[in-house]
Amino acid sequence: MATRKLKIGLLGCGNVGGGLVELVNKNDAVIRQRSGVELSITKILVRDLTKERSGVNPALLTTQPEKVLKNGCDMVVELVGGIEPARSFIQESLAGGKHVVTANKALLAIDGFSLMKTAEAKKLRLGFEASVCGGIPIIRALRSGLVGNRIQSLSGILNGTSNYILTRMTEDRVGFDAALHEAQAKGFAEADPTLDVDGHDAAQKLKILAELAFNAEVSQDAIQVEGIRSITADDVQAADELGYVIKHVATAELADDTISLRAASVLLPQSHQLAVVRDENNAVLLRGDAVGEMLFCGKGAGPLPSASAVLSDIVDIACHKGGFHPVHGATVGAARRDYESRHYLRFAVDDPSAIGTITSVLERNRVGVARAAAVWAKTASSQNQVRVLTHAGSRKAVDGALAEVVVAGIDPGKALVLRVGE
Amino acid sequence: MATRKLKIGLLGCGNVGGGLVELVNKNDAVIRQRSGVELSITKILVRDLTKERSGVNPALLTTQPEKVLKNGCDMVVELVGGIEPARSFIQESLAGGKHVVTANKALLAIDGFSLMKTAEAKKLRLGFEASVCGGIPIIRALRSGLVGNRIQSLSGILNGTSNYILTRMTEDRVGFDAALHEAQAKGFAEADPTLDVDGHDAAQKLKILAELAFNAEVSQDAIQVEGIRSITADDVQAADELGYVIKHVATAELADDTISLRAASVLLPQSHQLAVVRDENNAVLLRGDAVGEMLFCGKGAGPLPSASAVLSDIVDIACHKGGFHPVHGATVGAARRDYESRHYLRFAVDDPSAIGTITSVLERNRVGVARAAAVWAKTASSQNQVRVLTHAGSRKAVDGALAEVVVAGIDPGKALVLRVGE
Repeated sequence: MATRKLKIGLLGCGNVGGGLVELVNKNDAVIRQRSGVELSITKILVRDLTKERSGVNPALLTTQPEKVLKNGCDMVVELVGGIEPARSFIQESLAGGKHVVTANKALLAIDGFSLMKTAEAKKLRLGFEASVCGGIPIIRALRSGLVGNRIQSLSGILNGTSNYILTRMTEDRVGFDAALHEAQAKGFAEADPTLDVDGHDAAQKLKILAELAFNAEVSQDAIQVEGIRSITADDVQAADELGYVIKHVATAELADDTISLRAASVLLPQSHQLAVVRDENNAVLLRGDAVGEMLFCGKGAGPLPSASAVLSDIVDIACHKGGFHPVHGATVGAARRDYESRHYLRFAVDDPSAIGTITSVLERNRVGVARAAAVWAKTASSQNQVRVLTHAGSRKAVDGALAEVVVAGIDPGKALVLRVGE
Repeated sequence: MATRKLKIGLLGCGNVGGGLVELVNKNDAVIRQRSGVELSITKILVRDLTKERSGVNPALLTTQPEKVLKNGCDMVVELVGGIEPARSFIQESLAGGKHVVTANKALLAIDGFSLMKTAEAKKLRLGFEASVCGGIPIIRALRSGLVGNRIQSLSGILNGTSNYILTRMTEDRVGFDAALHEAQAKGFAEADPTLDVDGHDAAQKLKILAELAFNAEVSQDAIQVEGIRSITADDVQAADELGYVIKHVATAELADDTISLRAASVLLPQSHQLAVVRDENNAVLLRGDAVGEMLFCGKGAGPLPSASAVLSDIVDIACHKGGFHPVHGATVGAARRDYESRHYLRFAVDDPSAIGTITSVLERNRVGVARAAAVWAKTASSQNQVRVLTHAGSRKAVDGALAEVVVAGIDPGKALVLRVGE
């Protein structure tokens, strides 16, 4: 089936913009196969024409916004960030009849609702999957995957920086300052971390998600915002002793037709689904009246995860325009039966002293034995067994050993072989 | 903005079909607001006209397939299940130019690839979100949300019955038979559990997911299929002693341009993201080259979760046809600041014996004290503290107590107040 071409005007070529160019170059064929859409970036707005940009065709660069906005492209991707001129760029694109994709969380938290209305009035699409939780397709889930659900509550770890800092404080028993410095050194926190650690970034994302989930405009003032600066190593330890973990969680919940919204540190039971989300990961836990509880978890930021989200919006808009036309690839025929893994083996034996024979046969077949146990049956109805945990080795080698074990009088049909790890 | 009407012909009104009718009736307004689509089910194929069906208009029922297929509907929803006549119904619908939505995993595992090709050749959509993992929008994630990613591996707990049985065996230390009986009693397992406990259901779902993830036709024979029947209580215990949990996991991974596929029991480290998925829940863990690791987790079956997935396909197809036109609802203004919760309170004090004053003030303000600790600073740079874990109470009451504490000479500005729980 023929593919359709889609021309993209790109505003901004920083982290996410650069990631987008990289991803389009790299996964061009996959995208075409899955969607029938052939993407081409036709013009890129940058601030500095002379800056080195690997993988970017310098002929596409311009410092004049009109060269992108009035370039006959099908769609404008806004990745300059901030409020102005980003807002004007988006308004101008929509006025010019172009679909828009943006990752601009700060702008959407202020003007998202009105920009969406402008787009709808012009029957255009405004994609913003990348504005919340990086590569996790949570906007799509709310708009489309869970469209038939009345959302009852939504809570999430929406700020990766805060989660990284709290994870370090919990696991390494360090204080806030030390954890913040480590986050800055690793590039997970800005030099000025205010937006992240004081809860404002999470609150902005919560506003965007809540407006979609509850189909209502949320006033920023309605959100109770607290950060993580006041949490000490002692608090983390005290929480741990009580069976809790301190996490920064943004929550919106509906009760009695009122939405209650907050972004604050909370104590979660250690087994809670959000309590186990570590490091810079993000997660969103939704409760819908049809699906019950659902968790989405993954990387919430970074050039490639965010570019992945931008790309999903681009393709989605292209498909909405012209239909979905995957071009199917190869057939997968023959199985690849062999693999490397650790294994757990269990043999039913008459005499558990067969442990010697079994481990020798395994070792002879190059299946390293990490642990082995000879187990006498505890009851009349149970069996004597030999259990083995192997080192990593090929499944073929394990099967070879099983065949030899028969010779030693042990029924390999009664053996259980399980991989260790997925 | 005006809504668009969409006429649905429904084939089958069993568990999922009944759930769909219930959901359309119940969440009609939410769906219209989010998508601008007004759904109406215009004809329903059933086997028995006399059966009691609550919430279903009897005038819509028919026992003749043609009455549904040739009813001038915009879309056919196939929920009769099984291979025939379901396949013929779908083929006939596509031939008649109608989009199709189906939850038919067994049919898709056999003919999915060719049915998709037929639909594409006619520029029609074939939706099958409900065929895998119930309400979790995993098909949508693969087709759209992660469209820009080269998927490297995909593994999941795809069979809720097996996961329920293994959870019971792990947590209650019972054997396979006892756990299976419990699953049957609770309606999580069929009278004949073969498809579920022998791995075939998971393998069928894996085939559908792998074909989308790798954009290639997968031969059923290429999947190594093993079930959970041979797992004993002893195996579960032995795994636990080694730090592992036994789970039934379906995996497809790409290496050296070959896809390796298996659905089998494995030992997972206890902290693995799939190891903590309990009971009848499903989960899918994906690795994409742009997004890294991503987890989706939720209810994998049941009338309403599956109906939610069917509905998402219906609305998606309607929006692809005519655009996405949400009708926005109310504005959320005033915050609801008060809430009920347990709280963790931390006070900086000169003298930790202030614990008496603090707990009295709390109790007087109807904030029940569950635990309180007077903590002397361990180092010169740290502070003397009083820490309190309260019973559930209103935030307003806590704030009232904080105001009174000032009078007692304790600086409430230095107090930390955290909710316990989201």
